[in-house]
Amino acid sequence: MSAIDLVKQRVRDVPDFPKPGIMFKDITPVLADPSAFNICLDLMAERYDTSSFDAIVGIESRGFIFGAALASRMRKAFVPARKPGKLPAATHRVEYALEYGKDAIEIHRDALKKGERVLIVDDLLATGGTAAATIELVKKVGGEVIGAAFVIELTFLPGRERLKPVDAFALIQY
Amino acid sequence: MSAIDLVKQRVRDVPDFPKPGIMFKDITPVLADPSAFNICLDLMAERYDTSSFDAIVGIESRGFIFGAALASRMRKAFVPARKPGKLPAATHRVEYALEYGKDAIEIHRDALKKGERVLIVDDLLATGGTAAATIELVKKVGGEVIGAAFVIELTFLPGRERLKPVDAFALIQY
Repeated sequence: MSAIDLVKQRVRDVPDFPKPGIMFKDITPVLADPSAFNICLDLMAERYDTSSFDAIVGIESRGFIFGAALASRMRKAFVPARKPGKLPAATHRVEYALEYGKDAIEIHRDALKKGERVLIVDDLLATGGTAAATIELVKKVGGEVIGAAFVIELTFLPGRERLKPVDAFALIQY
Repeated sequence: MSAIDLVKQRVRDVPDFPKPGIMFKDITPVLADPSAFNICLDLMAERYDTSSFDAIVGIESRGFIFGAALASRMRKAFVPARKPGKLPAATHRVEYALEYGKDAIEIHRDALKKGERVLIVDDLLATGGTAAATIELVKKVGGEVIGAAFVIELTFLPGRERLKPVDAFALIQY
């Protein structure tokens, strides 16, 4: 069995979450298996040259899990992109559309130095709304996005297109 | 300068957050410095014998940052304790009192095997309400809490007392 197949085996389908008709890809069994979790980090670390970026921006909340562990391992700065009102100092905010209504995401205004190169990390690329907003946030604070890495990509949704020209990398595609 | 002094230097005071009169200890500058972030993980890893526990339960959201990185490094299972409605499968929930009103935290019912030994990780020990609720959650799913590790402890609040007999360990005390 290949390394990524072990990770795939650990992803659990949970029907009707967060609402009826949605089949949720639950990565908590991946996290519960140290081998599977570390394979995810190994594969992300192999994909990006350590000299090609300075910081990882992790998207709240599951992006914190993968992003911070990867930042520690690759010795990069870790920057949290958070839901509104959670970051204590001055922030930039970007709003984005949801299926019904809208949401927003924030970053500290001093989170990056001008020209710092950023890898965005989250667990799931679906519609790409949150990741696209995070790309915009990074630009607002003077950073340059060199890529966006995900554990899972739902290829029946247009997330990858939405992030262009930023390259999306996913360990598992459904 | 000692290792922990580097971390202390990176903790930033943000006045009047989350409300007027509160001086918030902001750890985002710690995360932005790979040396400081890894010192936190080094010191936590040194404190706990790797054979003394099986899983790390990280408390949403900043506990995910330290807990998942530590779990990866120590090759332990990582289990997220999350705000209500965020975990997709069947959960246990524990409510706890806030200054005004109440909050709750959840864990997957199948997150731990019976008798698994757990280290709880969060960034801040203040009143101890969330951590005490998380201890209760771990017991509900059959786990045994061997300790609770924090980056920062506010010693003018009774968090440490509230967690007893679970031992609280903090890298920095104010």
